Amino acid sequence: MNDFYYITRVRIKRKDDKGNEYFGRGVADLLHGVEKYQSLNLAAQDMGMAYSKAWRIVRQAEEALGIVLLYRMRKNGSRLTEEGKKLLNIYEEAEEAAWKAVNEVMEKYYGRTDYERMGESPESEQ
Amino acid sequence: MNDFYYITRVRIKRKDDKGNEYFGRGVADLLHGVEKYQSLNLAAQDMGMAYSKAWRIVRQAEEALGIVLLYRMRKNGSRLTEEGKKLLNIYEEAEEAAWKAVNEVMEKYYGRTDYERMGESPESEQ
Repeated sequence: MNDFYYITRVRIKRKDDKGNEYFGRGVADLLHGVEKYQSLNLAAQDMGMAYSKAWRIVRQAEEALGIVLLYRMRKNGSRLTEEGKKLLNIYEEAEEAAWKAVNEVMEKYYGRTDYERMGESPESEQ
Repeated sequence: MNDFYYITRVRIKRKDDKGNEYFGRGVADLLHGVEKYQSLNLAAQDMGMAYSKAWRIVRQAEEALGIVLLYRMRKNGSRLTEEGKKLLNIYEEAEEAAWKAVNEVMEKYYGRTDYERMGESPESEQ
């Protein structure tokens, strides 16, 4: 079992949403990029993603959750809303907590191993 | 935030696997069905899934992990291997631990709410 990875992902969706739209890793990474670059366009570029796709991912998450995550500046660039920042921080804390919990279970059964956390999210996980 | 769901999922894959095949919720549910019905066919039916698809999901997970999860009986039906049982149990324990950890984070920020764990896995999560 030493050559296994494990991954744990948190997603948030609204209770009455019948679709499969989530606030997940894909949108979280985009929001981190916006924090860094103050621009959704640059955030998308940094992830090798088309701007149109990045915009769609953010819009879908906003619609699914019923909150605004980004606002556009009058000139160029985008910023996170306060609600967006809060949700992003809680999301990351939750995922970190989940990962630690899974790690403890794996160590219990397999001992201290070279398990690593996976960094990439498959396309389907946005 | 009281009308939000959150979900956390654990997946396991092999370190050298470059694909996107995981041991995840889809295959775990199929294995539970095999434990219950002693048959992959009945397990698939119970999930409203074609047998061919169920077989493909199990095979992909076996190939991705390099272990055998199911064996076919000489007459009818399938059983979990010992390795399959062990992995399934650890998987469930890990997912339960992850969920509790996420729950604690959400309660810290939002208080005791009516958060519920989501029961369904989207198609993309097998």
